[in-house]
Amino acid sequence: MEKKLEEFAEYLKTIEHYQTAGSLMYWDMTTGMPEKAAESRIETMSFMNIQQHNLCISPKVEEFIKFFEAHMDEFDFVHKRMTTQLKKDYEKEKIYPESFIKEYSLAASKGQLAWEKAKNESNFEIFKPALQKLVDLTKQKIEYKGYKDNKYDALLDEYEPGLTVEKLDKVFGEMRDGIVEILDKIKKSGNTIDNSFFKKEFPKEEQEKFCLKMLEVIGFDFEAGRMDESEHPYTLNMTNKDLRITNHYYTHEFASAMFSAIHEGGHAIYEQDIPDSLEGTGLNKTSSMAVHESQSRFYENIIGRSASFCKYLYTVAVEYFPEQFKGVTEEQFYKAINRVEPSLIRTEADELTYSLHVIIRYEIEKLLINDKITVDDLPRVWNEKYKEYLGVEPQNDKEGVLQDMHWSDGSFGYFPSYALGNLYGAQMLNVMVKDVPDVYEHIEKGNLDPVHQWLKKNVHECADLYDPSDLIKKISGEELQAKYFLDYLNKKYKDIYNY
Amino acid sequence: MEKKLEEFAEYLKTIEHYQTAGSLMYWDMTTGMPEKAAESRIETMSFMNIQQHNLCISPKVEEFIKFFEAHMDEFDFVHKRMTTQLKKDYEKEKIYPESFIKEYSLAASKGQLAWEKAKNESNFEIFKPALQKLVDLTKQKIEYKGYKDNKYDALLDEYEPGLTVEKLDKVFGEMRDGIVEILDKIKKSGNTIDNSFFKKEFPKEEQEKFCLKMLEVIGFDFEAGRMDESEHPYTLNMTNKDLRITNHYYTHEFASAMFSAIHEGGHAIYEQDIPDSLEGTGLNKTSSMAVHESQSRFYENIIGRSASFCKYLYTVAVEYFPEQFKGVTEEQFYKAINRVEPSLIRTEADELTYSLHVIIRYEIEKLLINDKITVDDLPRVWNEKYKEYLGVEPQNDKEGVLQDMHWSDGSFGYFPSYALGNLYGAQMLNVMVKDVPDVYEHIEKGNLDPVHQWLKKNVHECADLYDPSDLIKKISGEELQAKYFLDYLNKKYKDIYNY
Repeated sequence: MEKKLEEFAEYLKTIEHYQTAGSLMYWDMTTGMPEKAAESRIETMSFMNIQQHNLCISPKVEEFIKFFEAHMDEFDFVHKRMTTQLKKDYEKEKIYPESFIKEYSLAASKGQLAWEKAKNESNFEIFKPALQKLVDLTKQKIEYKGYKDNKYDALLDEYEPGLTVEKLDKVFGEMRDGIVEILDKIKKSGNTIDNSFFKKEFPKEEQEKFCLKMLEVIGFDFEAGRMDESEHPYTLNMTNKDLRITNHYYTHEFASAMFSAIHEGGHAIYEQDIPDSLEGTGLNKTSSMAVHESQSRFYENIIGRSASFCKYLYTVAVEYFPEQFKGVTEEQFYKAINRVEPSLIRTEADELTYSLHVIIRYEIEKLLINDKITVDDLPRVWNEKYKEYLGVEPQNDKEGVLQDMHWSDGSFGYFPSYALGNLYGAQMLNVMVKDVPDVYEHIEKGNLDPVHQWLKKNVHECADLYDPSDLIKKISGEELQAKYFLDYLNKKYKDIYNY
Repeated sequence: MEKKLEEFAEYLKTIEHYQTAGSLMYWDMTTGMPEKAAESRIETMSFMNIQQHNLCISPKVEEFIKFFEAHMDEFDFVHKRMTTQLKKDYEKEKIYPESFIKEYSLAASKGQLAWEKAKNESNFEIFKPALQKLVDLTKQKIEYKGYKDNKYDALLDEYEPGLTVEKLDKVFGEMRDGIVEILDKIKKSGNTIDNSFFKKEFPKEEQEKFCLKMLEVIGFDFEAGRMDESEHPYTLNMTNKDLRITNHYYTHEFASAMFSAIHEGGHAIYEQDIPDSLEGTGLNKTSSMAVHESQSRFYENIIGRSASFCKYLYTVAVEYFPEQFKGVTEEQFYKAINRVEPSLIRTEADELTYSLHVIIRYEIEKLLINDKITVDDLPRVWNEKYKEYLGVEPQNDKEGVLQDMHWSDGSFGYFPSYALGNLYGAQMLNVMVKDVPDVYEHIEKGNLDPVHQWLKKNVHECADLYDPSDLIKKISGEELQAKYFLDYLNKKYKDIYNY
């Protein structure tokens, strides 16, 4: 048995080699690869992808599964979970023929390049053919996977195992109503917040230093990761000892890059904390993308935008940008950070309206995947929904349908993870403040270690040992629900807007 | 036949995928990879190496060779060459068992890390165990390869096909005598050159801009490459559309990074010029490392340190560093660039004494490989040879035996390529000035296109279509010889030192 486990660990390592290669190539492609290298880079990335896929579905894996299943009674909890997850992943992956994987992988790479060009020129037409291809392939994928009630269920399952449209409609409905209610109260309060000082000039170099400082504060390990610049911020994990964060700087936006750094840092810290002891089991990863987003959004919003952290943040901001923040009080600073304003861009949205951006995307994806609308309809439907939900209307494709990269690599079904992450986060917070009653006193001083340690123990170190629905039950004793998030928002904005 | 050639091209592409992955990982490792990633990175690089090796020696390759050989009479020149080179490479590679390749590859990665640490701490002892391992493996490699007269022949053949110790001793002997003679004349002339203004402060950021400008001037294609920072400058080719140059900046050295940029740029332009039409033949690469070094050193010295180019260089230097070059005349600038001074560090050596640094290394490697000295003896022998050949003595390992990275990845036998590159270059120059009589008038104005076009046509586009000895005959009508280089040096230094 020991020998078999070693052999399995070795096998996983081989898969990881291909994953590392592919990831590094992607990172390089987005952080500065010479232009003319694009064509061959896409081919090489696709090649690495296919090798990885082939290893995941090879008869060798079936052999491992059979062997492990035959020895289930000798196994501890970890190895039992290893076996069930291995089987699940294998069965998930083996349904696709190699030709499909190849086509999909190429389409995803081409999609990213086409989207980037389209976004730069703010012209959806440039992206359309590549997007159509990805939508077609996604529909084909759904056919391979199969589904019960709703085609979109098959996509949700990719990122949040077990989630369905039925369940999600319910929880998102509740969340939407709760947010709209708060939004109304804010409007009726008549109170407005000035954040014009965030629009002064903040030189890129200084912003970068500030972001590095924030990463340090939240506990990012710079010996196991780095931050670079790319068109859109993201986090990429090669291994738990090599996390690549990227960021993007706007010289007339104080908060954008900073909160991106904290957000991506949250993702990265999660991965850095995944225990080495799970290497060789395949469980050394997140249990779902919503749990992953819960960590990034926990750092970004629940901590980053809290009154306590803003006290500390204010002192650092004044130190780094004394001219820009001359005359700005701590209270003004905190309020500006939390100013609510329905807007066009998801990643720049305030904490309250953010989830509405996600719900819009969720609804559009559902329509698209269920053939209620076509790719051609997307810009129109997008703009209509923004008008309806947020009362704003994009003036062009760049600030509308082209703003997010997710569709460009075929990640349909991912968006809900962000809003679910908000729910997970608030439900976790509710437990954390009981476990660490003086946590906000530490946060106020810029000491985020108690937060980090709590998340590490309760979330990060659990890696993929539990399904996300079991994880949240383990942590909070309850199923995931919208209540905690809505309570949290209500309390926060009541204070800020005095409604 | 066409189908078979396509299949072969596809096969080569797969090999290239692994090579690209490995190269990018190396580049990343040396330009900023997080520290803790080192261990797994080394494993992944080694894995990619082995996949590549296995593909190069698979029975599939033997099949291709057999098929192509059976159809030799249908082939044109290119495909004939493709077949003979394929066979040669296959037979060169297939002698090693996989276990050896694995061990060697791991030892090379570990060697690099150990060397870097040792160099930083200027302590040869830190490097010794890793180096001993590499020396042992190199000797084992020689046993696998076999040799006729001298064990070192087996290593020379790795970088300069067909070269032997017997031939090299002759040509290096001639070169050494010639250089020593010029050195004596310079000494006897009693003339000295002041280059103290190169030791003023040159901020890194400005140097970097200056280097980028130089790369632009010599014709580096920034859409097919980029320049980064690493501990030691190098050039790495992923494909002919993705060349990675690295550089290193010393704030109190004007010329170091600049000439590194021009040197590495020479390597890179060569690779960028390799014709796409040779893709799928395996001939889309250099014919030898000496030819490669001939191109880098051609740009660095023959062009870069010429009186004509220095005229142009002077105007740019004054523009970028007006304060530092206040009061320095064009003549002083040119002479300072070409100041001769026996010194400790190869990469910082002047054009005249540089080849003596190479000859020292060649002699030491010969002794080591033929068991005349041991790894323990290296620092002592190194210092003794420096005293004997150059009259200078290292005060520590960092400026002595640890200065070069070549041994750290087992590249024994590479050093001669640099000095051979000097010979190739001078012999090429002799033809170029006849073909392009007004070439120096262009160079003076900073127009290097005529140089680039001549090299492109006569060297770069020839890629691996000819053995290096045939290539130089094709270009110059003669075998490689020391005469042209010595004549060139004599003429140059006679002018400068007025002897």
